[in-house]
Amino acid sequence: MRVAVPFGGRSPKSRLAPLFDADERREFALVMLRDVLDAIDRAGGDPVVLADTAVDVDVDVPVIVDDRPLTEVVNDELGGDEPVAIVMADLALATPEALTRLFETAGDVVAAPGLGGGTNALVVRTPSFTVDYHGASIADHRAIAADAGASFVEVDSMRLAVDVDEPTDLVEVLLHSQGRTRDWIEEHGVRLERGRGRVSVTRECR
Amino acid sequence: MRVAVPFGGRSPKSRLAPLFDADERREFALVMLRDVLDAIDRAGGDPVVLADTAVDVDVDVPVIVDDRPLTEVVNDELGGDEPVAIVMADLALATPEALTRLFETAGDVVAAPGLGGGTNALVVRTPSFTVDYHGASIADHRAIAADAGASFVEVDSMRLAVDVDEPTDLVEVLLHSQGRTRDWIEEHGVRLERGRGRVSVTRECR
Repeated sequence: MRVAVPFGGRSPKSRLAPLFDADERREFALVMLRDVLDAIDRAGGDPVVLADTAVDVDVDVPVIVDDRPLTEVVNDELGGDEPVAIVMADLALATPEALTRLFETAGDVVAAPGLGGGTNALVVRTPSFTVDYHGASIADHRAIAADAGASFVEVDSMRLAVDVDEPTDLVEVLLHSQGRTRDWIEEHGVRLERGRGRVSVTRECR
Repeated sequence: MRVAVPFGGRSPKSRLAPLFDADERREFALVMLRDVLDAIDRAGGDPVVLADTAVDVDVDVPVIVDDRPLTEVVNDELGGDEPVAIVMADLALATPEALTRLFETAGDVVAAPGLGGGTNALVVRTPSFTVDYHGASIADHRAIAADAGASFVEVDSMRLAVDVDEPTDLVEVLLHSQGRTRDWIEEHGVRLERGRGRVSVTRECR
């Protein structure tokens, strides 16, 4: 299955500014992209990157550069007869097993919700569905599928629900991932900080 | 399977103080408990509540009152020959399907990680495993199982990963739950607030 991976490379991961500077955040976004592409490949998908700017490292998969808004770029991927998947580039916890479950779940539209209302991954098997990534997109996508008479099935996965946007998301990478992203975070001095309630992170050095 | 549900009823959900007063938070915790007990029942489990104080509403299941620390109380449930599950009382997104997946996953110890390092649900099929709920308990539980020579299998579920502790967790209830908890939140004026990034919540009235 063709798996489109939208990648925002211009000023990525701005909410991680308390921990990493702009160059580090760009590098970090690319490290996550590589992990996601690997997991897609190992799950049997054929990834293609939809980047909003040139990607200046070799990722071994086709890269389409298109600087229009995300929703427009993704909608150009949809509407054909073949199933297409859309998987966000910052799902650092994604495993081949979680993606296989996504790809193999039956439904006209199969979605993995993200924390905070996002739609972190989709499989679209009907030409009548379109995306709209503004706001609480998971609710919008349910409504769009219903209006189109398409079935909408949600995959219950923590690994696909966590997109890495904020410092607390790094806790999940440190606790649940084994990939390059985890290594990169550790090499940049980020450590778990155990207190009361949920675990947080701290950066030891710059 | 016996399913123990630890319930802290003394001053529950203190991190929701920005939205609800102490009486409301007590009521809210009980509403979530009822939803969780229902989901366990519908998944074929036999729930028993382990409460740290008397529960002053009728929950239709046995309630054991024990004010010792959580870890001690739960460890008293373990060590026998029969499998036991431990499911936290604030998993407002838990569905019968998610709990069935937990109960039916093979392994000496089966765990559903919570966001921020918690262990939101467990199935224990070996007398050699004990719990320790302090700090990043999912990492501790992996280590305890390894030391005991027990297999440790994790269930990848967003519905079991979200325990409702903080205002942002209410976003997930509003977007993904259909139970009493969602009704209660809506009746208390909490609404989704869409902005940039993740969706948040606001309370319209008190």
